Amino acid sequence: MKGVFAAVLTPMRDDLSVDRAAYAEHCRRLLDEGCHGLGIFGTTGEANSLSVAERVDAWEGLVEDGIPADVLLPGTGACALPDAVTLAREALAVGAPGVLALPPFYYKGVSDDGLFRFFAELIERVGDDRLRLFLYHIPPMAVVGFTPELIRRLMEAYPGVVVGTKDSSGDGERIERICREFPDLIVFAGTEKYLLDTLNWGGDGCISATVNVTARQAREVYDLWEAGQDASAAQAALTERREYLDGFPTIPALKALVGWKNLRPPLQPLDDELARTISS
Amino acid sequence: MKGVFAAVLTPMRDDLSVDRAAYAEHCRRLLDEGCHGLGIFGTTGEANSLSVAERVDAWEGLVEDGIPADVLLPGTGACALPDAVTLAREALAVGAPGVLALPPFYYKGVSDDGLFRFFAELIERVGDDRLRLFLYHIPPMAVVGFTPELIRRLMEAYPGVVVGTKDSSGDGERIERICREFPDLIVFAGTEKYLLDTLNWGGDGCISATVNVTARQAREVYDLWEAGQDASAAQAALTERREYLDGFPTIPALKALVGWKNLRPPLQPLDDELARTISS
Repeated sequence: MKGVFAAVLTPMRDDLSVDRAAYAEHCRRLLDEGCHGLGIFGTTGEANSLSVAERVDAWEGLVEDGIPADVLLPGTGACALPDAVTLAREALAVGAPGVLALPPFYYKGVSDDGLFRFFAELIERVGDDRLRLFLYHIPPMAVVGFTPELIRRLMEAYPGVVVGTKDSSGDGERIERICREFPDLIVFAGTEKYLLDTLNWGGDGCISATVNVTARQAREVYDLWEAGQDASAAQAALTERREYLDGFPTIPALKALVGWKNLRPPLQPLDDELARTISS
Repeated sequence: MKGVFAAVLTPMRDDLSVDRAAYAEHCRRLLDEGCHGLGIFGTTGEANSLSVAERVDAWEGLVEDGIPADVLLPGTGACALPDAVTLAREALAVGAPGVLALPPFYYKGVSDDGLFRFFAELIERVGDDRLRLFLYHIPPMAVVGFTPELIRRLMEAYPGVVVGTKDSSGDGERIERICREFPDLIVFAGTEKYLLDTLNWGGDGCISATVNVTARQAREVYDLWEAGQDASAAQAALTERREYLDGFPTIPALKALVGWKNLRPPLQPLDDELARTISS
């Protein structure tokens, strides 16, 4: 798994249930626009606002509706170990080649030992050698995150299982450090602003919310880089678009741009003025 | 509901499943030691480290094992609206007179409008006029919390349903403000350090982790206050004990004192040295 991944939005009906048809259609469009893969049911996908059963139903529907399972990176974000185990098993059952694993995020100030034990229990309880974990580092939301020491410890304890990370710290220095310190780790930046940098640092791509609307541009950067051509102008244009979008509340703004108005609380739709601004 | 409530610890077997027999026995002892009620499956009870089904099973077991349902205040803490709805309905089904409701805690920086909508949807989807919500304000863990404005808005929109709060801000000034500003709200302090203060400010008691081991002392303070006697010396002794316990990681330390060693990750048992210190 490498390249440009959208952190896919989850469309919802007025009753806040997942709109299965719109979901498959949106995923198909993202692949058509050049995404190498789809990070489904992470922060952008409002995963933690859905029950475990709702998430699994949506993944199954997506594969039944023709989205190839081998491009999917589903999230297993849960505070409760048994929920993370269920989500990881179900991701394997639908045929996903990896999962994006949040740390348990309710308790704050927890130790690396406690987080290590959570992932050790997760891996051992799933008990399936097809499991591939991508460590999801997003301190702005989860608060709890992965120190480089914890990443090393998990990679050493579970080689071939702990294979990657998505780094949504927003901190380029940290992403560079992770890329350089762990050459065997698949590193995705959490924003396409760092796409070219991450590739140049030895990383592998990006998984980003805004790729829901920037997929073609992001793919262009990747393809130029892969061909050994100068991607800096394409990256500058991509960065400019991302920085414009950063002026809005991310998930509501992206839903408005895609034409969807429903979000699960506590997230709220854009107010009318912002919706007009972003659509103009 | 008023008085001294323990935020009850959840005993676990070596495989991390809930130890049903030990749970009922501990709850019975807390009632025998003077607790007016039991806050089950909140932060201290590691609720968010258990699946929804595990929580509901444990509540049902407790009532089947003879703990009176009318002293129970179960937590409905969940990021996902359908999970909070299930937990609230099941709490009513076992006969609990109220529920302790965390705000959805994954997304940070959310608006009061978004939180209001979460609770409005929760109340409307539960659709049961027996529902009594206690708003669980614990910013050190949930980060997301309740502003006084949001409390007012919820009380006005759902009078007789939004009836109380547990304030674990650790901020005496805030608790005093909430007590004085909302005389009709049932206010529990989140620590027995503020028990007598809260009662004197017009509040109703405390729901506290450390009451797992301070129940008799806390009840003494309450009874003296209720009888119109001077409770200040009893409160000073209670505060001293609480402050000693504050020197340890709360949940592991309390489990060690009760004689239990298992915690769900990411929480970890006390290390041997701390365990010796606290038990001596």
